Amino acid sequence: MRMYRILIVLLLLVVSCKESKTNVDLIVINAQAYLVNASFDTAEAFAVKDGKFLEIGSSKYIQDTYESSQIIDAKNKTILPGLIDAHCHFYGLGLNQLQVDLVGTTSFEEVIERVKIFQKNKKANFIIGRGWDQNDWAVQEFPNKKILDSLFPGTPVALTRVDGHAMLCNTAALKVAGITLETKAEGGEILVENNQLTGVLIDNPMELVEAVFPKPSKKMQITALNDAQHICTSLGLTTVSDAGLDQQVIELIDSLQQANVLDMRIYAMISNKKENLDYYLTKGKIKTPRLNVQSVKVYADGALGSRGAALKESYSDKHNHFGALVIGVEDYKTLAQRIANSDYQMNTHAIGDSANRFVLQTYNKVLQDKENRRWRVEHAQVITDNDFEYFKNDNIIPSIQPTHATSDMYWAEDRLGAQRVKGAYAYKTLLEISGKVALGTDFPVEQVNPFLTFYAAVSRKDTKGYPENGFNIRDGLTREETLKGMTIWAAYSNFEDEEKGSIETGKYADFIILDRDIMTVEINQVPETKVLSTFINGKKVH
Amino acid sequence: MRMYRILIVLLLLVVSCKESKTNVDLIVINAQAYLVNASFDTAEAFAVKDGKFLEIGSSKYIQDTYESSQIIDAKNKTILPGLIDAHCHFYGLGLNQLQVDLVGTTSFEEVIERVKIFQKNKKANFIIGRGWDQNDWAVQEFPNKKILDSLFPGTPVALTRVDGHAMLCNTAALKVAGITLETKAEGGEILVENNQLTGVLIDNPMELVEAVFPKPSKKMQITALNDAQHICTSLGLTTVSDAGLDQQVIELIDSLQQANVLDMRIYAMISNKKENLDYYLTKGKIKTPRLNVQSVKVYADGALGSRGAALKESYSDKHNHFGALVIGVEDYKTLAQRIANSDYQMNTHAIGDSANRFVLQTYNKVLQDKENRRWRVEHAQVITDNDFEYFKNDNIIPSIQPTHATSDMYWAEDRLGAQRVKGAYAYKTLLEISGKVALGTDFPVEQVNPFLTFYAAVSRKDTKGYPENGFNIRDGLTREETLKGMTIWAAYSNFEDEEKGSIETGKYADFIILDRDIMTVEINQVPETKVLSTFINGKKVH
Repeated sequence: MRMYRILIVLLLLVVSCKESKTNVDLIVINAQAYLVNASFDTAEAFAVKDGKFLEIGSSKYIQDTYESSQIIDAKNKTILPGLIDAHCHFYGLGLNQLQVDLVGTTSFEEVIERVKIFQKNKKANFIIGRGWDQNDWAVQEFPNKKILDSLFPGTPVALTRVDGHAMLCNTAALKVAGITLETKAEGGEILVENNQLTGVLIDNPMELVEAVFPKPSKKMQITALNDAQHICTSLGLTTVSDAGLDQQVIELIDSLQQANVLDMRIYAMISNKKENLDYYLTKGKIKTPRLNVQSVKVYADGALGSRGAALKESYSDKHNHFGALVIGVEDYKTLAQRIANSDYQMNTHAIGDSANRFVLQTYNKVLQDKENRRWRVEHAQVITDNDFEYFKNDNIIPSIQPTHATSDMYWAEDRLGAQRVKGAYAYKTLLEISGKVALGTDFPVEQVNPFLTFYAAVSRKDTKGYPENGFNIRDGLTREETLKGMTIWAAYSNFEDEEKGSIETGKYADFIILDRDIMTVEINQVPETKVLSTFINGKKVH
Repeated sequence: MRMYRILIVLLLLVVSCKESKTNVDLIVINAQAYLVNASFDTAEAFAVKDGKFLEIGSSKYIQDTYESSQIIDAKNKTILPGLIDAHCHFYGLGLNQLQVDLVGTTSFEEVIERVKIFQKNKKANFIIGRGWDQNDWAVQEFPNKKILDSLFPGTPVALTRVDGHAMLCNTAALKVAGITLETKAEGGEILVENNQLTGVLIDNPMELVEAVFPKPSKKMQITALNDAQHICTSLGLTTVSDAGLDQQVIELIDSLQQANVLDMRIYAMISNKKENLDYYLTKGKIKTPRLNVQSVKVYADGALGSRGAALKESYSDKHNHFGALVIGVEDYKTLAQRIANSDYQMNTHAIGDSANRFVLQTYNKVLQDKENRRWRVEHAQVITDNDFEYFKNDNIIPSIQPTHATSDMYWAEDRLGAQRVKGAYAYKTLLEISGKVALGTDFPVEQVNPFLTFYAAVSRKDTKGYPENGFNIRDGLTREETLKGMTIWAAYSNFEDEEKGSIETGKYADFIILDRDIMTVEINQVPETKVLSTFINGKKVH
């Protein structure tokens, strides 16, 4: 009788257990999931409900506790929190897709071929291309507009050289731009052969053509955003921090997100323009589940490659040349104070050591009585003397792009010399001092692929394995640090660490499934990583 | 042998005929289609390609000439060009759907019930309702906030009376609005019982609550536009002329249309505000396949019912009261001149005979050396003396709402007297002089249903058949005139007669299929007309 009662109780328990399973939208089991929580745990399984992680645990526990019409068996594949690119140009990437990509063409015939294919698909009113380099061709001469004229008599065509310093135009483009044999070419050249324009422009005269480039229509803008999303989600990005947008584009993004056309989450830094500042600083932060507007992108100086970065001492490869700030010192200080008085974050592009010191000093001054402002130095590329110390302020975060280090390493020492280059791309040093770094790519300046970022940050090598010991390898990051920089720290730098950046209960169910475990495979296999699927808000978007 | 050769030739003809059929996106056959072309023909069939009518003809001819994977056999049903509402508030209709509709409630319990159901579905942060009338209840007393307080202790609720002159608020709403027993109620009343607020506000104090109504979020705006589209397409509208929108909403509409979220074609009149004028008049006309921005909506006076319309002589039912213009005379003239100098159309709300004369005189003055400007007088409700003559100008079009006549006829003569009322709602007179009238509804002021417009224009009766001979029946329109006013003339008044308003080759394939032939059925059967399907751009949207 007693046994009988025990059996009854057990049976009831089993039945109630079965009955009490909670229905959820999605269950993932048998995964190797890096949660990127505080203790950097892994887990096998999780349940997703209403776009958020509901619970994380063993496959058995999750299956015993939850039921769903959608169960993914990850078959021991690696899962990561959705990746965040903390500094990129998402909309710019999309706009680039509206142009002919001529990078890597090995002949002028191939250039023409690509333009023809592009135009067959896109039917543009004005064909814009970019990326040719006559040094890669058999005949290493500037091309001529004749073929373009015969193919596109009525449609302007403008094809910019890979370095942005030369442009081939057809006659229609020259006409719209008002360029004739009489046009003065100050600060550049308008090439002429046999008393006829060849169509090639060098430097300043290019601006005459660029000035008549058509503005993208709303339809083109939507196409651009969709194209950019497609590229990014296929590579595992679920949040992008766009470093500089105007109100019109931000409004469009919001509309498309709210209408469920655009899934991507976007941290939109506003461009430093009067109308943007007047509108957004007055309005205050805007935060929806997919859009977050609460920062201003500002430029302090130029780039190192073109010697525009502002250095304290002369460039090592150009005598008495220091680069320069691109904003007035007082203007910058006034702007910083204005942003400090608002609830916005300030994100300043600073490459040279002089620009970095100036920005850091200004930040420290205007933020001295503030808390939790998380102002960012974008790039923080060359730091010298004791300037690293300025990053000790909890209000300041370095926002860095590891592939810049491995793209620039071939000539960085030329610009900076053996001593200064030690403080360049010094990611580990920055991390040690600031406690957090936000990682990004600056795409489309660099490639979008975040696994190249991971590889560069850890190995400090290019994809051919050069240099053997890694460039300034002392400043390489560990894999754990790198993954945090691409997830939870990037989220922190966006004021979003409460809702994303890790796989934890209550956070958005943004995650990716990979074909390999980037935390354990040979580091040189990381660049080839394939993203098998990408989920945003629990919805499969790739 | 000769017979044999003839047979071969015939066979070849048949084969080649079969082979030469052109593939199209949609074929409609066996219809009774009113084309609304210049000769007001009917046709049986048409072919649609790339969103446009490709060819119109007999069922046999269309089937012999075209092939398609989508063939609709209309089974002799009536087809019309997609209907256009030339004056309405499309976005406003959508916003109304975000509020509780209390029109027609027969008890306070029913009011509460509707609010409960609304809130269960919508989960609003601030419940706004409209349309109760205690005169329709068994207990004809103003209600009290007690029940609302117990049901919604934390959510503000504000329910406006049908006439807009009283409002029931719960305690949460009074609190947000800062209304207490001490609040002064100038120009209205704040009802108190037993030294406690009852929650009922009369007139001006309502503004304190309205001031804290939440602004619709972008998500709510999108929901509103989608809801409005659903209502309109189900009633056969394919183009709506929204009489007054701001830039932000227009941009949102454009984004949703371009992203293929919103199918409806919208003629967006901009509201008369400085920022709208500065932006749009500088930018010039904007015309996409679905959006057309090239007009300004301006108010000259108020409404007749509330005695706000500006009359030349005193109201017949209010001694020495003339109504008034709502815009300064010089301001109006300056604005008209500014719009005349731009490429925009001016559409002025003018109800009273004084307002109409002033607007018409101004139009005639600033347009005297202009052509094809198609400026509209919205409503053109009361015209007296020889003022009809001002409509002889090709630059001026009456934009009228036939259901206004049958809504107002019960009291119009009270306001105007037996003589003046003859020049009110004088649609036939307006048509005879101007040659074209654009028809609309002013929804949500009137019902959306365009078949009520058709019925009112032709019969001049309410849906109960009153008055027996029609109100001022001399000003009734023929069915043909009415249909033209709802299609081709409305399109003309939008500068869109080249691309819509009739079923003709090259025009957008916007059309509707009806359950009855409104051109021939008993006129009292027209209000019950059902729209079986609605097509925009050849795509079925209802």
